[in-house]
Amino acid sequence: MNIPRTSFPRIVIIGGGFAGISLAKQLGKKEVQVVLLDKHNYHTFQPLLYQVSTGGLEPDSIAYPIRKILKDYPNFFFRLAEVEEIHPESFTISTNIGDLKYDHLVIATGSKTNFFGNKKIQANSMQMKTIPQSLNLRSLILENFEEALLNDDLNERDALMNFVIVGAGPTGVELAGALAEIKKGILPKDYPDLDIRRVSINLVQGSDRVLPAMSEKASQGAEDYLQELGVHVWKNVRVEDYDGHLATTNTDISFETATLIWAAGVQGAVIKGLEAKDLLARGNRLCVNSFNEVQGYEGIYAIGDIACMTDEQFPDGHPMMAQPAIQQGTQLGKNLLRKIDGKTMKPFKYKDKGSMATVGRNKAVVDLPSFKFQGVFAWFVWMFVHLFFLIGFRNRMVVFINWVYNYVRFDREARLIIRPYKHKKMLQKVEQRQQVSS
Amino acid sequence: MNIPRTSFPRIVIIGGGFAGISLAKQLGKKEVQVVLLDKHNYHTFQPLLYQVSTGGLEPDSIAYPIRKILKDYPNFFFRLAEVEEIHPESFTISTNIGDLKYDHLVIATGSKTNFFGNKKIQANSMQMKTIPQSLNLRSLILENFEEALLNDDLNERDALMNFVIVGAGPTGVELAGALAEIKKGILPKDYPDLDIRRVSINLVQGSDRVLPAMSEKASQGAEDYLQELGVHVWKNVRVEDYDGHLATTNTDISFETATLIWAAGVQGAVIKGLEAKDLLARGNRLCVNSFNEVQGYEGIYAIGDIACMTDEQFPDGHPMMAQPAIQQGTQLGKNLLRKIDGKTMKPFKYKDKGSMATVGRNKAVVDLPSFKFQGVFAWFVWMFVHLFFLIGFRNRMVVFINWVYNYVRFDREARLIIRPYKHKKMLQKVEQRQQVSS
Repeated sequence: MNIPRTSFPRIVIIGGGFAGISLAKQLGKKEVQVVLLDKHNYHTFQPLLYQVSTGGLEPDSIAYPIRKILKDYPNFFFRLAEVEEIHPESFTISTNIGDLKYDHLVIATGSKTNFFGNKKIQANSMQMKTIPQSLNLRSLILENFEEALLNDDLNERDALMNFVIVGAGPTGVELAGALAEIKKGILPKDYPDLDIRRVSINLVQGSDRVLPAMSEKASQGAEDYLQELGVHVWKNVRVEDYDGHLATTNTDISFETATLIWAAGVQGAVIKGLEAKDLLARGNRLCVNSFNEVQGYEGIYAIGDIACMTDEQFPDGHPMMAQPAIQQGTQLGKNLLRKIDGKTMKPFKYKDKGSMATVGRNKAVVDLPSFKFQGVFAWFVWMFVHLFFLIGFRNRMVVFINWVYNYVRFDREARLIIRPYKHKKMLQKVEQRQQVSS
Repeated sequence: MNIPRTSFPRIVIIGGGFAGISLAKQLGKKEVQVVLLDKHNYHTFQPLLYQVSTGGLEPDSIAYPIRKILKDYPNFFFRLAEVEEIHPESFTISTNIGDLKYDHLVIATGSKTNFFGNKKIQANSMQMKTIPQSLNLRSLILENFEEALLNDDLNERDALMNFVIVGAGPTGVELAGALAEIKKGILPKDYPDLDIRRVSINLVQGSDRVLPAMSEKASQGAEDYLQELGVHVWKNVRVEDYDGHLATTNTDISFETATLIWAAGVQGAVIKGLEAKDLLARGNRLCVNSFNEVQGYEGIYAIGDIACMTDEQFPDGHPMMAQPAIQQGTQLGKNLLRKIDGKTMKPFKYKDKGSMATVGRNKAVVDLPSFKFQGVFAWFVWMFVHLFFLIGFRNRMVVFINWVYNYVRFDREARLIIRPYKHKKMLQKVEQRQQVSS
């Protein structure tokens, strides 16, 4: 990779998510050379992906060009690249655009969907971790209704209008709520010749409550909201298999559906070279000490979802969400500069700023360390916080306009099938066959 | 196709462009059954596609769900379908979702890019007639710069930063201007380690002036603006071949470029069943009489780009742009209702409302029937008119916000490679091979 060697130490960051960006911002103007690698040229604001899938927002509004975020940083280099392997012994990484030496390597690759080894579910279900995945889901939902119009077989038509969301974490809850609002506000107008009452939205949760990571109060509140919106909540039910039409569970409940969205788990997006089992914690995360150093390696750090830093309060590591990632990125930035100056690093301490989820208009639940609340005010807090953390003035304006519009008009206008998903899937299948045969 | 037969006469419209939509709006609330077919579920505002390609606007802002446009029309049916053939003898059309009988058939399929039979140019160049095509171009432009960063071969790097736009109609001129502004305002910040001075934007025009359809004054003004922006304008030059790297012309001028955008011609998007040569005018358009009836057929009409209605003022038919399409759609709507009521139809008369093109900030040319003007005021007129014709309040708001932002910040933020074009092209090639082999 043709990146000039300077007298400054080179810090290579893999991943432009919350963790990687907040780290880069700490380092960008200091006497270090920062090389940020990502397989996308944009930063994605993942908490709002579900609104892209449901036509509430346009993808460009929740993504932001990485080059622009850091354009004022003199010693900063971005490369659009996929990292293939880490070679700790030679302080080198190999990527699809060549090798690169590092002095300090920071792994901020985040997380990916965890199918717990079920290949069939993986092959047939939808995910929502990236913008392309969210656009695919948006297309599929709309394609299903267009197809339902043409289908005279009542069972197949119902399957096309039946949505199963597996996993009642924030993603699952927010997506279920959004779909319920679409069913109520948009589908009857868009598809007058379909019996929209038959549209059914199912939220399936393995444990005994939704939003298990939040307070009992929040879980109860969110579940009440979901019931109000007509979402079928299935607790203590685990989807065990899905062939693209029938989803079976550990109970006698099963679902005939053309659309199963898998939001039941995430795992660290580990890169080849470091997967030695002994340094992987639960959920494929890299064990790090309180300085985010990957255990057993020199000059290699991990931050955000991929990092598992345990203490008495977090025996399984910090929650895999934006806040710990941002805080670890900032902290590691300061620590690296200390280390380079020959000072000692300071251990990371997570400041829990609380968590929140929205179910629909005027419906949200907020857990703050101090107090917990729900309803209209919580919903406004949710919107304000998300607008605040969005990167870029234009994005904030456009998202704000869309939210006001959607609120006033009970509408979601970005419901365009811009890249048909079913067609794309066919292309990919063809490609896979091709690769196998060749 | 399962569309209920009613006592109302059935009018089938093929195409949801300017012509098809304005016709549907005339008919939607009358005692007729309207079936609108389109291969996309959205209407595209084509005049702004070039801003999608250049990151100034998000695709969803210039497209609009067809179902929403016509949701209040009781006798209106939309189907997402590709029409395969017209069978005039049986008053039937066959589509990829089944056959459909019609009482009146209106062909509003618009136009597609015309490569004048050059397969090699078609295979290697970019077009900009649809949203997916515009997104592909956006991705390719950005991918080229990411690739240029990695390429040490100076010639190849220049080819990646060299853009050739063939055809200096409004599309070509507006795209060239936008690229020039990106070169000036964005690339130096985004790619500090590239020598952006080497980026070259070439506009190639076969005739002796740009915007040949507009006034001499407008042509001169637009060319001056392009020069100011550093666009290389090549007049009386015709690109004759392009292999994906080298573009050769009828002169000794040739271009080494990785990106050739073909905006040199359009042709009617004719459907099988009516192509009998005698009813096709120049540019593959269907000859229609002053009532938009396709000559030699009963109950078949054509409007918009696909229709060629000639008179002394327009010996080659009306210009292939939005205004004639909208006016013909409205007029045919009224005429069809007259015909159904047993009244006589009124001949179409085109009201020329003028034409305009923008080259960049504060730079536009406007030809009105009464007078012609250019500069800042023309530019504001251009923006106002385009905002006015955009469908949907939300779209207008979002586009307006983006324009204000881009104007104040000299920026274009929607520069995300959301679906890598080069990868997609690979998939398609694989698919083609597959189809051939099977």
